[in-house]
Amino acid sequence: MKVVLACDLGGTNLRMALVDKDGKMFYQSRSETPKTREEIIRKIVSLAEECSYEARRVGYEVNALGIAAPATLNSEKGIIMKAPNVPALDGMPICSVLENELKIQCFLENDANAAAIGEQNFGSARGFNSIVMVTLGTGVGGGIILDGKLWRGIDGTAGEIGHITVEPMGASCGCGSRGCLEQYSSASAIIRMTKEFRCDYPRSPLYSRLFLTAKDVYEAGKQGDKLALKVFEQMGTYLGIGLAGLINVLNPEAIVIGGGASEGWELFIPYTIEQIRKRAYEEPAQRAKLLKAELGEMAGVLGAAKIAFDKMKSVATPGI
Amino acid sequence: MKVVLACDLGGTNLRMALVDKDGKMFYQSRSETPKTREEIIRKIVSLAEECSYEARRVGYEVNALGIAAPATLNSEKGIIMKAPNVPALDGMPICSVLENELKIQCFLENDANAAAIGEQNFGSARGFNSIVMVTLGTGVGGGIILDGKLWRGIDGTAGEIGHITVEPMGASCGCGSRGCLEQYSSASAIIRMTKEFRCDYPRSPLYSRLFLTAKDVYEAGKQGDKLALKVFEQMGTYLGIGLAGLINVLNPEAIVIGGGASEGWELFIPYTIEQIRKRAYEEPAQRAKLLKAELGEMAGVLGAAKIAFDKMKSVATPGI
Repeated sequence: MKVVLACDLGGTNLRMALVDKDGKMFYQSRSETPKTREEIIRKIVSLAEECSYEARRVGYEVNALGIAAPATLNSEKGIIMKAPNVPALDGMPICSVLENELKIQCFLENDANAAAIGEQNFGSARGFNSIVMVTLGTGVGGGIILDGKLWRGIDGTAGEIGHITVEPMGASCGCGSRGCLEQYSSASAIIRMTKEFRCDYPRSPLYSRLFLTAKDVYEAGKQGDKLALKVFEQMGTYLGIGLAGLINVLNPEAIVIGGGASEGWELFIPYTIEQIRKRAYEEPAQRAKLLKAELGEMAGVLGAAKIAFDKMKSVATPGI
Repeated sequence: MKVVLACDLGGTNLRMALVDKDGKMFYQSRSETPKTREEIIRKIVSLAEECSYEARRVGYEVNALGIAAPATLNSEKGIIMKAPNVPALDGMPICSVLENELKIQCFLENDANAAAIGEQNFGSARGFNSIVMVTLGTGVGGGIILDGKLWRGIDGTAGEIGHITVEPMGASCGCGSRGCLEQYSSASAIIRMTKEFRCDYPRSPLYSRLFLTAKDVYEAGKQGDKLALKVFEQMGTYLGIGLAGLINVLNPEAIVIGGGASEGWELFIPYTIEQIRKRAYEEPAQRAKLLKAELGEMAGVLGAAKIAFDKMKSVATPGI
């Protein structure tokens, strides 16, 4: 049987898995992402060899490696342009480097795009051809699939859903703008808003907490804490404002919401739905299913695997 | 030589022209748009016959009719779904009705989409494959072309750029939402904002004007009137906020700005550029050329002609 290696090269974790064409994972391995370029390549090679060894052991043939990276990149040439969270990779022709090391074909894709492909093929958006994927993590990312094809944009920078303005004079954003969706609907935004609002909620268990995580706020919200509920209301409202615009502009079949902060789903999604009802046209609003992502942290790996399978095929049958 | 008939079925005017495959118009005719369904069809048929007569007179062969309509519609089936400005057409299978009358193939497209196709093929966006077209008219409309293909959305409702939220608690919009781009960057918005701001500008020639048009405000702005300049600043700023989001999400090659209110270009575009610089990522912002539409009121007609030529071809060579 044919399988591929799939790698999610994250800012924190480096995941590698052995995946078949139906998205079934046979083996997986993980490590922290090293800091330097050489260490990263060495680590990818060693995880790939570990997975390949497993493949050979059970008689599977490994044909290609798909890589998802948190970067703007040239997927045709397999070059990483700019990776803000793994700066060691800036400008690296990672596919040719790894093809040289591993002697198999390598394919590169942006991580949010890979996650969109993963969810569309193996996750909650199975059966949909035109979707918008939004990942609510430390930041807010996105991937757009139209008629079954990734829309990467002219320079591969499309899908930056987190940097739609939802509040013109709102909170400053790392991108240089202000009032970006990312400042209201990401895990970091949950923490910032909790700190901003908490002086009004002295009885909240979050009031005097020194170190806060988005998960703390979620747990408090589940217990009915009013501060946490207020934060998730804000988060869901702005998410709805952004998504309503995308629904009016793109008229997609489904919107998949993933990333760590999507765990707070039941606390924020009612406000998201309310804004979409108020702000989007009725027909596209009714069309666009709001789906919670299913693949969690493995969306990128599974998307990278699907990409490797698809591209490998097209290379394996030249001229057809 | 082969030519097509192209019709722009507007809320106010009905235009018909004889166009060749290079977008050259040989003959054109115009009438007010009648109110009832029967009168509209009769008028289209009579204009089509007038144009066809001219074609025959000079020895040209008329093969098809392309129609641009201000409506959500099913272009494959040639049916108008909903036309808020020409309600008589709601639900009408206009292509089969006209094919029956005229005995030539008919093709239907939304007017903003047709304008985008027109500008991309014969106007300011010649040579670009992935563009966003924004029309600043009574309302704000849009059309999206990605990789040379119109993106219509799943229900044909995509491209509603005028209904992106740019000010969450802003002015109420006819669509039921508030703070839509249309409320800040359309011709009607120019008039509304002039009336809103003018109590602060008692010396403006617009201060006590009873009837105001967007053109009056533009003319005053060209003369340096501070009220008018303030209005165009607001218009351009919000347009930039909306376009910056589209640039981050779609990474297009160009944005074409048309419609009557685009006449104020030199008064609003500096503010649009400023917001794009502040709010969009550098790479896609530098990529996206801001182009003033060139075809004016004929963009829809020329787009409809191009569509008729393209589809006619594909029908004429079945199975290939």
